[in-house]
Amino acid sequence: MIEAVTETTIRVRYGETDQMGHAYYANYFYWFEVARGAWLRDRGVTYKSIEEMGIMLPVVEAHAEYRGEVKYDDDVVVRIWLAEKRRASIQFKYEVLNHGKVVTTGYTWHVTMSREKRKAVSIPIFVNEFLERDPTVYERLH
Amino acid sequence: MIEAVTETTIRVRYGETDQMGHAYYANYFYWFEVARGAWLRDRGVTYKSIEEMGIMLPVVEAHAEYRGEVKYDDDVVVRIWLAEKRRASIQFKYEVLNHGKVVTTGYTWHVTMSREKRKAVSIPIFVNEFLERDPTVYERLH
Amino acid sequence: MIEAVTETTIRVRYGETDQMGHAYYANYFYWFEVARGAWLRDRGVTYKSIEEMGIMLPVVEAHAEYRGEVKYDDDVVVRIWLAEKRRASIQFKYEVLNHGKVVTTGYTWHVTMSREKRKAVSIPIFVNEFLERDPTVYERLH
Amino acid sequence: MIEAVTETTIRVRYGETDQMGHAYYANYFYWFEVARGAWLRDRGVTYKSIEEMGIMLPVVEAHAEYRGEVKYDDDVVVRIWLAEKRRASIQFKYEVLNHGKVVTTGYTWHVTMSREKRKAVSIPIFVNEFLERDPTVYERLH
Repeated sequence: MIEAVTETTIRVRYGETDQMGHAYYANYFYWFEVARGAWLRDRGVTYKSIEEMGIMLPVVEAHAEYRGEVKYDDDVVVRIWLAEKRRASIQFKYEVLNHGKVVTTGYTWHVTMSREKRKAVSIPIFVNEFLERDPTVYERLH
Repeated sequence: MIEAVTETTIRVRYGETDQMGHAYYANYFYWFEVARGAWLRDRGVTYKSIEEMGIMLPVVEAHAEYRGEVKYDDDVVVRIWLAEKRRASIQFKYEVLNHGKVVTTGYTWHVTMSREKRKAVSIPIFVNEFLERDPTVYERLH
Repeated sequence: MIEAVTETTIRVRYGETDQMGHAYYANYFYWFEVARGAWLRDRGVTYKSIEEMGIMLPVVEAHAEYRGEVKYDDDVVVRIWLAEKRRASIQFKYEVLNHGKVVTTGYTWHVTMSREKRKAVSIPIFVNEFLERDPTVYERLH
Repeated sequence: MIEAVTETTIRVRYGETDQMGHAYYANYFYWFEVARGAWLRDRGVTYKSIEEMGIMLPVVEAHAEYRGEVKYDDDVVVRIWLAEKRRASIQFKYEVLNHGKVVTTGYTWHVTMSREKRKAVSIPIFVNEFLERDPTVYERLH
Protein backbone atom coordinates (compact mmCIF):
# COMPACT_ATOMS: atom_id res chain seq x y z
CA MET A 1 0.00 0.00 0.00
CA ILE A 2 1.36 3.40 -0.95
CA GLU A 3 1.20 5.72 2.03
CA ALA A 4 1.73 8.85 -0.05
CA VAL A 5 0.68 11.99 1.75
CA THR A 6 -1.57 14.58 0.19
CA GLU A 7 -1.47 18.11 1.53
CA THR A 8 -4.23 20.63 1.23
CA THR A 9 -4.38 24.18 2.56
CA ILE A 10 -7.49 25.58 4.23
CA ARG A 11 -7.97 29.10 5.45
CA VAL A 12 -9.97 29.21 8.68
CA ARG A 13 -13.29 31.03 8.27
CA TYR A 14 -14.62 33.52 10.79
CA GLY A 15 -17.74 31.42 11.14
CA GLU A 16 -15.57 28.44 12.07
CA THR A 17 -14.31 30.13 15.22
CA ASP A 18 -16.11 30.21 18.55
CA GLN A 19 -16.13 32.70 21.39
CA MET A 20 -12.98 31.11 22.82
CA GLY A 21 -11.29 32.59 19.76
CA HIS A 22 -10.29 29.21 18.28
CA ALA A 23 -11.64 27.06 15.51
CA TYR A 24 -14.52 25.07 17.00
CA TYR A 25 -13.55 21.43 17.44
CA ALA A 26 -16.22 19.99 15.14
CA ASN A 27 -14.96 21.99 12.18
CA TYR A 28 -11.76 19.97 11.91
CA PHE A 29 -13.92 17.12 10.65
CA TYR A 30 -15.08 19.32 7.79
CA TRP A 31 -11.42 19.91 6.96
CA PHE A 32 -10.68 16.19 7.10
CA GLU A 33 -13.43 15.76 4.51
CA VAL A 34 -11.83 18.41 2.30
CA ALA A 35 -8.54 16.53 2.65
CA ARG A 36 -10.18 13.27 1.58
CA GLY A 37 -11.44 15.00 -1.54
CA ALA A 38 -7.93 16.27 -2.29
CA TRP A 39 -6.44 12.83 -1.68
CA LEU A 40 -8.71 11.32 -4.32
CA ARG A 41 -8.04 14.19 -6.74
CA ASP A 42 -4.33 13.40 -6.39
CA ARG A 43 -5.23 10.00 -7.81
CA GLY A 44 -7.20 11.43 -10.70
CA VAL A 45 -10.66 10.74 -9.29
CA THR A 46 -13.31 12.61 -7.30
CA TYR A 47 -15.43 11.37 -4.43
CA LYS A 48 -18.41 12.68 -6.37
CA SER A 49 -17.68 10.33 -9.25
CA ILE A 50 -17.23 7.39 -6.86
CA GLU A 51 -20.70 8.06 -5.46
CA GLU A 52 -22.04 8.30 -9.00
CA MET A 53 -20.52 4.88 -9.66
CA GLY A 54 -22.64 3.58 -6.79
CA ILE A 55 -20.23 3.47 -3.86
CA MET A 56 -20.42 5.69 -0.80
CA LEU A 57 -17.74 5.95 1.88
CA PRO A 58 -19.65 6.98 5.01
CA VAL A 59 -17.63 7.67 8.13
CA VAL A 60 -18.05 4.98 10.79
CA GLU A 61 -15.44 6.28 13.20
CA ALA A 62 -13.89 9.71 13.68
CA HIS A 63 -11.16 10.83 16.02
CA ALA A 64 -9.16 13.98 16.65
CA GLU A 65 -6.57 15.13 19.17
CA TYR A 66 -6.11 18.85 19.56
CA ARG A 67 -2.74 20.01 20.85
CA GLY A 68 -2.30 23.51 19.51
CA GLU A 69 -4.17 26.62 18.56
CA VAL A 70 -5.91 27.30 15.31
CA LYS A 71 -7.38 30.74 14.86
CA TYR A 72 -9.31 32.79 12.37
CA ASP A 73 -7.50 33.40 9.08
CA ASP A 74 -4.83 30.82 9.84
CA ASP A 75 -3.78 28.94 6.75
CA VAL A 76 -3.71 25.39 8.05
CA VAL A 77 -2.21 22.53 6.08
CA VAL A 78 -4.08 19.25 6.33
CA ARG A 79 -1.96 16.17 5.58
CA ILE A 80 -3.80 12.94 4.81
CA TRP A 81 -2.73 9.42 3.99
CA LEU A 82 -4.37 6.03 3.63
CA ALA A 83 -3.30 4.15 6.75
CA GLU A 84 -5.16 0.87 6.58
CA LYS A 85 -7.33 -1.14 4.25
CA ARG A 86 -9.59 -4.01 5.21
CA ARG A 87 -12.13 -6.08 3.33
CA ALA A 88 -14.90 -3.50 3.44
CA SER A 89 -13.34 -0.51 5.16
CA ILE A 90 -10.45 1.93 5.00
CA GLN A 91 -8.74 4.24 7.42
CA PHE A 92 -7.36 7.68 6.68
CA LYS A 93 -5.00 9.48 9.04
CA TYR A 94 -4.60 13.22 9.29
CA GLU A 95 -2.27 15.87 10.60
CA VAL A 96 -3.22 19.52 10.78
CA LEU A 97 -0.27 21.90 10.68
CA ASN A 98 -0.42 25.54 11.66
CA HIS A 99 2.58 27.78 11.09
CA GLY A 100 4.57 24.62 10.38
CA LYS A 101 3.72 22.79 13.59
CA VAL A 102 1.42 19.79 13.98
CA VAL A 103 -1.49 21.09 16.06
CA THR A 104 -4.01 18.31 15.54
CA THR A 105 -3.94 14.66 14.55
CA GLY A 106 -6.83 12.40 13.74
CA TYR A 107 -8.24 9.53 11.77
CA THR A 108 -11.45 8.38 10.18
CA TRP A 109 -12.70 4.93 9.28
CA HIS A 110 -15.00 4.50 6.30
CA VAL A 111 -16.97 1.56 5.02
CA THR A 112 -17.52 0.92 1.36
CA MET A 113 -21.28 1.02 1.05
CA SER A 114 -23.45 0.24 -1.93
CA ARG A 115 -25.56 3.30 -2.65
CA GLU A 116 -28.28 1.07 -4.05
CA LYS A 117 -28.45 -1.48 -1.24
CA ARG A 118 -27.38 0.90 1.54
CA LYS A 119 -25.23 -1.92 2.83
CA ALA A 120 -21.53 -2.44 3.38
CA VAL A 121 -19.87 -4.30 0.53
CA SER A 122 -16.33 -5.52 -0.05
CA ILE A 123 -14.16 -2.81 -1.57
CA PRO A 124 -15.05 -3.02 -5.26
CA ILE A 125 -12.18 -3.60 -7.67
CA PHE A 126 -12.59 -0.19 -9.29
CA VAL A 127 -12.39 1.54 -5.91
CA ASN A 128 -9.40 -0.55 -4.90
CA GLU A 129 -7.68 0.48 -8.09
CA PHE A 130 -8.03 4.16 -7.04
CA LEU A 131 -6.79 3.40 -3.54
CA GLU A 132 -3.71 1.64 -4.89
CA ARG A 133 -2.82 4.35 -7.35
CA ASP A 134 0.58 5.98 -7.13
CA PRO A 135 -0.29 9.68 -7.02
CA THR A 136 3.01 10.65 -8.62
CA VAL A 137 1.87 9.23 -11.93
CA TYR A 138 -1.48 11.04 -11.89
CA GLU A 139 -2.05 14.70 -12.45
CA ARG A 140 -3.95 16.21 -9.56
CA LEU A 141 -7.46 16.92 -10.73
CA HIS A 142 -8.50 20.52 -10.41
CA MET B 1 -55.03 33.74 5.50
CA ILE B 2 -54.45 33.03 9.16
CA GLU B 3 -51.35 34.87 10.34
CA ALA B 4 -51.06 32.87 13.53
CA VAL B 5 -47.63 33.09 15.05
CA THR B 6 -45.70 30.03 16.17
CA GLU B 7 -43.00 30.45 18.75
CA THR B 8 -40.10 28.14 19.26
CA THR B 9 -37.24 28.40 21.73
CA ILE B 10 -33.65 27.69 20.76
CA ARG B 11 -30.66 27.68 23.03
CA VAL B 12 -27.57 29.10 21.34
CA ARG B 13 -24.80 26.51 21.00
CA TYR B 14 -21.15 27.27 21.70
CA GLY B 15 -20.28 26.21 18.19
CA GLU B 16 -22.75 28.77 16.84
CA THR B 17 -20.76 31.67 18.28
CA ASP B 18 -17.75 33.29 16.65
CA GLN B 19 -14.71 35.03 18.04
CA MET B 20 -16.67 38.29 18.28
CA GLY B 21 -18.58 36.50 21.04
CA HIS B 22 -21.93 36.57 19.21
CA ALA B 23 -23.94 34.03 17.30
CA TYR B 24 -22.50 33.98 13.77
CA TYR B 25 -24.89 35.62 11.32
CA ALA B 26 -25.41 32.56 9.12
CA ASN B 27 -26.72 30.50 12.03
CA TYR B 28 -29.93 32.50 12.29
CA PHE B 29 -30.97 30.85 9.04
CA TYR B 30 -30.66 27.46 10.73
CA TRP B 31 -32.96 28.76 13.46
CA PHE B 32 -35.43 30.05 10.86
CA GLU B 33 -35.51 26.49 9.49
CA VAL B 34 -36.22 25.11 12.97
CA ALA B 35 -39.05 27.63 13.26
CA ARG B 36 -40.53 26.50 9.94
CA GLY B 37 -40.57 22.96 11.24
CA ALA B 38 -42.36 24.08 14.40
CA TRP B 39 -44.86 26.12 12.39
CA LEU B 40 -45.86 23.03 10.42
CA ARG B 41 -46.01 20.91 13.59
CA ASP B 42 -48.46 23.45 14.99
CA ARG B 43 -50.67 22.50 12.04
CA GLY B 44 -50.33 18.79 12.65
CA VAL B 45 -47.86 18.08 9.87
CA THR B 46 -44.09 17.78 9.45
CA TYR B 47 -41.90 19.11 6.68
CA LYS B 48 -40.48 15.62 6.42
CA SER B 49 -43.89 14.20 5.54
CA ILE B 50 -44.46 16.95 2.96
CA GLU B 51 -41.22 15.96 1.24
CA GLU B 52 -42.30 12.33 1.40
CA MET B 53 -45.52 13.35 -0.32
CA GLY B 54 -43.37 14.70 -3.16
CA ILE B 55 -43.20 18.43 -2.48
CA MET B 56 -40.08 20.33 -1.44
CA LEU B 57 -40.01 23.91 -0.25
CA PRO B 58 -36.52 25.14 -1.14
CA VAL B 59 -35.56 28.64 -0.08
CA VAL B 60 -35.33 31.06 -3.00
CA GLU B 61 -34.78 34.21 -0.98
CA ALA B 62 -33.48 34.78 2.53
CA HIS B 63 -33.16 37.98 4.50
CA ALA B 64 -32.19 38.97 8.02
CA GLU B 65 -31.65 42.23 9.90
CA TYR B 66 -29.59 42.05 13.05
CA ARG B 67 -30.20 44.76 15.63
CA GLY B 68 -29.25 43.25 18.94
CA GLU B 69 -26.90 40.82 20.54
CA VAL B 70 -27.32 37.07 20.76
CA LYS B 71 -24.73 35.20 22.77
CA TYR B 72 -23.83 31.69 23.82
CA ASP B 73 -26.42 29.97 26.01
CA ASP B 74 -29.07 32.61 25.31
CA ASP B 75 -32.50 31.12 25.03
CA VAL B 76 -33.83 32.92 21.98
CA VAL B 77 -37.47 32.78 20.93
CA VAL B 78 -38.08 32.58 17.21
CA ARG B 79 -41.50 33.80 16.11
CA ILE B 80 -42.69 32.79 12.65
CA TRP B 81 -45.80 33.44 10.61
CA LEU B 82 -46.92 32.90 7.05
CA ALA B 83 -46.87 36.37 5.53
CA GLU B 84 -47.73 35.84 1.89
CA LYS B 85 -48.90 33.15 -0.47
CA ARG B 86 -48.62 33.24 -4.25
CA ARG B 87 -49.36 30.70 -6.94
CA ALA B 88 -46.20 28.69 -6.48
CA SER B 89 -44.44 30.34 -3.56
CA ILE B 90 -44.86 31.37 0.05
CA GLN B 91 -43.21 33.80 2.37
CA PHE B 92 -42.49 33.32 6.05
CA LYS B 93 -41.54 36.18 8.34
CA TYR B 94 -39.50 35.85 11.52
CA GLU B 95 -38.65 37.68 14.66
CA VAL B 96 -35.91 36.55 17.02
CA LEU B 97 -36.37 37.69 20.60
CA ASN B 98 -33.66 37.64 23.22
CA HIS B 99 -34.50 38.43 26.84
CA GLY B 100 -37.89 39.65 25.60
CA LYS B 101 -36.59 42.09 22.98
CA VAL B 102 -36.71 41.69 19.21
CA VAL B 103 -33.06 41.44 18.18
CA THR B 104 -33.43 40.15 14.63
CA THR B 105 -36.10 40.14 11.94
CA GLY B 106 -36.12 38.29 8.67
CA TYR B 107 -38.04 36.52 6.00
CA THR B 108 -37.67 33.64 3.59
CA TRP B 109 -39.39 32.89 0.29
CA HIS B 110 -39.96 29.30 -0.74
CA VAL B 111 -41.19 27.74 -3.95
CA THR B 112 -43.30 24.64 -4.04
CA MET B 113 -41.17 22.25 -6.02
CA SER B 114 -42.01 18.80 -7.27
CA ARG B 115 -39.42 16.41 -5.88
CA GLU B 116 -39.85 14.19 -8.92
CA LYS B 117 -39.62 16.85 -11.61
CA ARG B 118 -37.31 19.18 -9.66
CA LYS B 119 -39.47 22.01 -10.96
CA ALA B 120 -41.67 24.66 -9.39
CA VAL B 121 -45.33 23.70 -9.36
CA SER B 122 -48.48 25.49 -8.20
CA ILE B 123 -49.08 24.98 -4.51
CA PRO B 124 -50.77 21.55 -4.43
CA ILE B 125 -54.17 21.37 -2.77
CA PHE B 126 -52.90 19.16 0.06
CA VAL B 127 -50.13 21.63 0.85
CA ASN B 128 -52.52 24.55 0.68
CA GLU B 129 -54.75 22.79 3.12
CA PHE B 130 -51.89 22.69 5.64
CA LEU B 131 -51.05 26.34 5.03
CA GLU B 132 -54.66 27.37 5.64
CA ARG B 133 -55.06 25.37 8.83
CA ASP B 134 -56.02 27.14 12.00
CA PRO B 135 -53.35 26.00 14.45
CA THR B 136 -55.66 26.41 17.42
CA VAL B 137 -57.67 23.41 16.32
CA TYR B 138 -54.63 21.17 15.86
CA GLU B 139 -52.54 19.68 18.55
CA ARG B 140 -48.91 20.58 18.11
CA LEU B 141 -47.07 17.49 16.92
CA HIS B 142 -44.21 16.47 19.14
CA MET C 1 -17.42 9.65 41.33
CA ILE C 2 -21.11 9.74 40.50
CA GLU C 3 -21.65 8.45 36.99
CA ALA C 4 -25.18 9.78 36.74
CA VAL C 5 -26.39 10.01 33.18
CA THR C 6 -28.00 13.12 31.78
CA GLU C 7 -30.25 12.78 28.77
CA THR C 8 -31.07 15.53 26.36
CA THR C 9 -33.22 15.41 23.25
CA ILE C 10 -32.18 17.05 20.00
CA ARG C 11 -34.21 17.25 16.84
CA VAL C 12 -32.06 16.89 13.74
CA ARG C 13 -32.09 20.02 11.59
CA TYR C 14 -32.38 19.93 7.81
CA GLY C 15 -29.13 21.86 7.57
CA GLU C 16 -27.44 19.14 9.60
CA THR C 17 -28.07 16.51 6.93
CA ASP C 18 -25.94 15.93 3.88
CA GLN C 19 -26.72 14.64 0.41
CA MET C 20 -26.38 11.05 1.66
CA GLY C 21 -29.58 11.81 3.57
CA HIS C 22 -28.00 11.39 7.02
CA ALA C 23 -26.80 13.76 9.68
CA TYR C 24 -23.28 14.81 8.67
CA TYR C 25 -20.71 13.21 10.95
CA ALA C 26 -19.25 16.46 12.31
CA ASN C 27 -22.63 17.57 13.65
CA TYR C 28 -22.66 14.91 16.34
CA PHE C 29 -19.91 16.90 18.05
CA TYR C 30 -22.26 19.88 18.24
CA TRP C 31 -24.78 17.60 19.93
CA PHE C 32 -22.16 16.34 22.36
CA GLU C 33 -21.59 20.00 23.28
CA VAL C 34 -25.32 20.49 23.85
CA ALA C 35 -25.25 17.41 26.09
CA ARG C 36 -22.35 18.82 28.12
CA GLY C 37 -24.40 21.96 28.71
CA ALA C 38 -27.34 19.87 29.89
CA TRP C 39 -25.10 17.78 32.15
CA LEU C 40 -23.93 20.92 33.94
CA ARG C 41 -27.47 22.28 34.16
CA ASP C 42 -28.45 19.05 35.88
CA ARG C 43 -25.93 20.07 38.56
CA GLY C 44 -27.30 23.58 38.89
CA VAL C 45 -24.58 25.34 36.92
CA THR C 46 -23.99 26.50 33.36
CA TYR C 47 -20.85 26.25 31.26
CA LYS C 48 -21.27 29.95 30.60
CA SER C 49 -20.94 30.74 34.29
CA ILE C 50 -17.88 28.50 34.60
CA GLU C 51 -16.21 30.48 31.82
CA GLU C 52 -17.21 33.69 33.57
CA MET C 53 -15.52 32.37 36.69
CA GLY C 54 -12.32 32.08 34.65
CA ILE C 55 -12.18 28.42 33.67
CA MET C 56 -12.59 27.07 30.15
CA LEU C 57 -12.96 23.42 29.23
CA PRO C 58 -11.60 23.18 25.69
CA VAL C 59 -11.81 19.83 23.94
CA VAL C 60 -8.42 18.14 23.57
CA GLU C 61 -9.68 14.84 22.19
CA ALA C 62 -12.89 13.89 20.43
CA HIS C 63 -14.10 10.52 19.27
CA ALA C 64 -17.25 9.07 17.74
CA GLU C 65 -18.35 5.71 16.37
CA TYR C 66 -21.33 5.70 14.06
CA ARG C 67 -23.30 2.48 13.85
CA GLY C 68 -26.77 3.49 12.85
CA GLU C 69 -28.72 6.00 10.87
CA VAL C 70 -29.76 9.44 11.99
CA LYS C 71 -31.95 11.40 9.62
CA TYR C 72 -33.67 14.73 9.32
CA ASP C 73 -36.34 15.38 11.94
CA ASP C 74 -35.26 12.44 14.07
CA ASP C 75 -35.53 13.18 17.75
CA VAL C 76 -32.27 11.77 19.02
CA VAL C 77 -31.52 11.32 22.69
CA VAL C 78 -27.98 12.10 23.74
CA ARG C 79 -26.86 10.43 26.95
CA ILE C 80 -23.78 11.82 28.69
CA TRP C 81 -21.84 10.93 31.81
CA LEU C 82 -18.57 11.90 33.42
CA ALA C 83 -16.34 8.89 32.86
CA GLU C 84 -12.97 9.93 34.18
CA LYS C 85 -11.33 12.73 36.10
CA ARG C 86 -7.63 13.45 36.24
CA ARG C 87 -5.58 16.26 37.76
CA ALA C 88 -6.26 18.76 35.01
CA SER C 89 -8.63 16.98 32.65
CA ILE C 90 -11.96 15.20 32.47
CA GLN C 91 -13.59 12.76 30.11
CA PHE C 92 -17.23 12.66 29.12
CA LYS C 93 -18.78 9.68 27.37
CA TYR C 94 -21.80 9.80 25.12
CA GLU C 95 -24.44 7.62 23.56
CA VAL C 96 -26.79 8.81 20.87
CA LEU C 97 -30.07 6.93 20.70
CA ASN C 98 -32.45 7.05 17.78
CA HIS C 99 -35.85 5.40 18.04
CA GLY C 100 -34.59 3.78 21.25
CA LYS C 101 -31.46 2.20 19.78
CA VAL C 102 -27.87 3.30 20.40
CA VAL C 103 -26.68 4.53 17.01
CA THR C 104 -23.52 6.38 18.01
CA THR C 105 -21.09 6.35 20.90
CA GLY C 106 -18.29 8.74 21.64
CA TYR C 107 -16.19 10.57 24.14
CA THR C 108 -14.43 13.87 24.63
CA TRP C 109 -11.50 14.86 26.81
CA HIS C 110 -11.31 18.39 28.19
CA VAL C 111 -8.59 20.23 30.04
CA THR C 112 -9.32 22.77 32.70
CA MET C 113 -7.76 25.91 31.35
CA SER C 114 -7.36 29.28 32.97
CA ARG C 115 -9.06 31.85 30.77
CA GLU C 116 -6.60 34.48 31.95
CA LYS C 117 -3.39 32.52 31.50
CA ARG C 118 -4.64 30.38 28.59
CA LYS C 119 -2.88 27.48 30.28
CA ALA C 120 -3.99 24.17 31.72
CA VAL C 121 -4.47 24.30 35.48
CA SER C 122 -5.42 21.67 38.04
CA ILE C 123 -9.16 21.31 38.32
CA PRO C 124 -10.11 24.19 40.63
CA ILE C 125 -11.98 23.31 43.82
CA PHE C 126 -15.13 25.13 42.71
CA VAL C 127 -15.19 23.20 39.43
CA ASN C 128 -14.54 19.93 41.20
CA GLU C 129 -17.46 20.68 43.47
CA PHE C 130 -19.75 20.89 40.40
CA LEU C 131 -18.30 17.69 38.95
CA GLU C 132 -18.92 15.81 42.21
CA ARG C 133 -22.49 17.01 42.63
CA ASP C 134 -25.25 14.48 42.88
CA PRO C 135 -27.72 15.67 40.21
CA THR C 136 -30.67 14.20 42.06
CA VAL C 137 -30.38 16.86 44.74
CA TYR C 138 -30.20 19.75 42.26
CA GLU C 139 -33.02 21.10 40.23
CA ARG C 140 -32.14 21.11 36.57
CA LEU C 141 -31.52 24.69 35.51
CA HIS C 142 -33.71 25.82 32.69
CA MET D 1 -15.70 54.88 -5.11
CA ILE D 2 -13.94 52.08 -6.97
CA GLU D 3 -16.37 49.23 -7.61
CA ALA D 4 -13.64 46.77 -8.50
CA VAL D 5 -14.79 43.18 -8.29
CA THR D 6 -12.86 40.53 -6.43
CA GLU D 7 -13.41 36.90 -7.37
CA THR D 8 -12.74 33.96 -5.15
CA THR D 9 -13.30 30.28 -5.83
CA ILE D 10 -14.82 27.95 -3.27
CA ARG D 11 -15.30 24.23 -3.61
CA VAL D 12 -18.55 23.06 -2.05
CA ARG D 13 -17.96 20.68 0.87
CA TYR D 14 -19.98 17.53 1.41
CA GLY D 15 -20.97 18.80 4.82
CA GLU D 16 -22.38 21.93 3.20
CA THR D 17 -24.99 19.97 1.29
CA ASP D 18 -28.34 18.86 2.66
CA GLN D 19 -30.58 15.92 1.89
CA MET D 20 -32.11 17.82 -1.02
CA GLY D 21 -28.69 17.37 -2.63
CA HIS D 22 -27.91 21.09 -2.77
CA ALA D 23 -25.76 23.43 -0.74
CA TYR D 24 -27.84 24.41 2.30
CA TYR D 25 -28.99 28.02 2.03
CA ALA D 26 -27.23 29.27 5.16
CA ASN D 27 -23.83 28.22 3.86
CA TYR D 28 -23.80 30.88 1.17
CA PHE D 29 -23.34 33.38 3.97
CA TYR D 30 -20.13 31.61 4.97
CA TRP D 31 -18.96 31.97 1.38
CA PHE D 32 -19.86 35.67 1.39
CA GLU D 33 -17.60 36.00 4.43
CA VAL D 34 -14.77 34.24 2.59
CA ALA D 35 -15.29 36.68 -0.29
CA ARG D 36 -15.06 39.67 2.08
CA GLY D 37 -11.74 38.35 3.30
CA ALA D 38 -10.50 38.03 -0.28
CA TRP D 39 -11.74 41.53 -1.13
CA LEU D 40 -9.64 43.00 1.67
CA ARG D 41 -6.63 40.88 0.70
CA ASP D 42 -6.89 42.36 -2.79
CA ARG D 43 -6.29 45.70 -1.09
CA GLY D 44 -3.31 44.48 0.88
CA VAL D 45 -5.05 44.11 4.23
CA THR D 46 -6.76 41.37 6.21
CA TYR D 47 -9.96 41.52 8.21
CA LYS D 48 -7.99 40.02 11.07
CA SER D 49 -5.63 43.00 11.14
CA ILE D 50 -8.57 45.43 11.03
CA GLU D 51 -10.00 43.76 14.12
CA GLU D 52 -6.60 43.95 15.74
CA MET D 53 -6.59 47.68 15.01
CA GLY D 54 -9.82 47.90 17.02
CA ILE D 55 -12.53 47.95 14.37
CA MET D 56 -15.06 45.18 13.78
CA LEU D 57 -17.42 44.96 10.84
CA PRO D 58 -20.39 42.96 12.14
CA VAL D 59 -23.15 42.12 9.70
CA VAL D 60 -26.35 44.09 10.35
CA GLU D 61 -28.24 42.92 7.29
CA ALA D 62 -27.86 39.89 5.05
CA HIS D 63 -29.72 38.95 1.93
CA ALA D 64 -29.54 36.23 -0.71
CA GLU D 65 -31.58 35.20 -3.72
CA TYR D 66 -31.13 31.66 -4.96
CA ARG D 67 -31.90 31.02 -8.61
CA GLY D 68 -29.83 28.04 -9.57
CA GLU D 69 -28.36 24.86 -8.27
CA VAL D 70 -25.16 24.46 -6.34
CA LYS D 71 -24.07 20.94 -5.54
CA TYR D 72 -21.32 19.04 -3.78
CA ASP D 73 -17.88 19.49 -5.32
CA ASP D 74 -18.99 22.40 -7.49
CA ASP D 75 -16.32 25.03 -7.81
CA VAL D 76 -18.34 28.18 -7.33
CA VAL D 77 -16.95 31.63 -8.01
CA VAL D 78 -18.03 34.32 -5.59
CA ARG D 79 -17.81 37.86 -6.95
CA ILE D 80 -17.87 40.70 -4.44
CA TRP D 81 -17.73 44.48 -4.70
CA LEU D 82 -18.25 47.43 -2.40
CA ALA D 83 -21.61 48.82 -3.41
CA GLU D 84 -22.28 51.63 -0.93
CA LYS D 85 -20.56 53.53 1.83
CA ARG D 86 -22.28 55.60 4.49
CA ARG D 87 -21.03 57.43 7.56
CA ALA D 88 -20.79 54.32 9.75
CA SER D 89 -21.73 51.44 7.45
CA ILE D 90 -20.85 49.77 4.19
CA GLN D 91 -22.61 47.46 1.80
CA PHE D 92 -21.06 44.61 -0.14
CA LYS D 93 -22.82 42.94 -3.04
CA TYR D 94 -22.23 39.39 -4.20
CA GLU D 95 -22.78 37.10 -7.13
CA VAL D 96 -22.23 33.37 -6.95
CA LEU D 97 -21.44 31.75 -10.28
CA ASN D 98 -21.61 28.04 -10.96
CA HIS D 99 -20.38 26.64 -14.26
CA GLY D 100 -20.22 30.24 -15.50
CA LYS D 101 -23.82 31.17 -14.66
CA VAL D 102 -24.99 33.47 -11.86
CA VAL D 103 -26.93 31.21 -9.52
CA THR D 104 -27.19 33.42 -6.46
CA THR D 105 -27.02 37.12 -5.70
CA GLY D 106 -26.90 38.83 -2.34
CA TYR D 107 -25.68 41.65 -0.21
CA THR D 108 -24.57 42.36 3.33
CA TRP D 109 -24.52 45.59 5.33
CA HIS D 110 -21.87 46.08 7.98
CA VAL D 111 -21.38 48.74 10.60
CA THR D 112 -17.98 49.94 11.68
CA MET D 113 -17.92 49.11 15.34
CA SER D 114 -15.33 49.96 17.92
CA ARG D 115 -14.10 46.73 19.47
CA GLU D 116 -13.38 48.55 22.71
CA LYS D 117 -16.68 50.41 23.07
CA ARG D 118 -18.80 47.79 21.26
CA LYS D 119 -20.53 50.71 19.58
CA ALA D 120 -20.94 51.90 16.01
CA VAL D 121 -18.44 54.59 15.08
CA SER D 122 -17.92 56.64 11.93
CA ILE D 123 -15.72 54.80 9.45
CA PRO D 124 -12.22 55.53 10.76
CA ILE D 125 -9.80 57.20 8.34
CA PHE D 126 -7.53 54.14 8.25
CA VAL D 127 -10.43 51.89 7.34
CA ASN D 128 -11.67 54.33 4.73
CA GLU D 129 -8.22 54.33 3.21
CA PHE D 130 -8.49 50.54 2.71
CA LEU D 131 -11.98 50.83 1.26
CA GLU D 132 -10.83 53.46 -1.24
CA ARG D 133 -7.78 51.52 -2.38
CA ASP D 134 -7.42 50.66 -6.02
CA PRO D 135 -6.81 46.90 -5.93
CA THR D 136 -4.82 47.01 -9.15
CA VAL D 137 -1.96 48.77 -7.40
CA TYR D 138 -1.85 46.30 -4.51
CA GLU D 139 -0.56 42.82 -4.59
CA ARG D 140 -3.15 40.38 -3.37
CA LEU D 141 -2.09 39.18 0.04
CA HIS D 142 -1.70 35.45 0.31
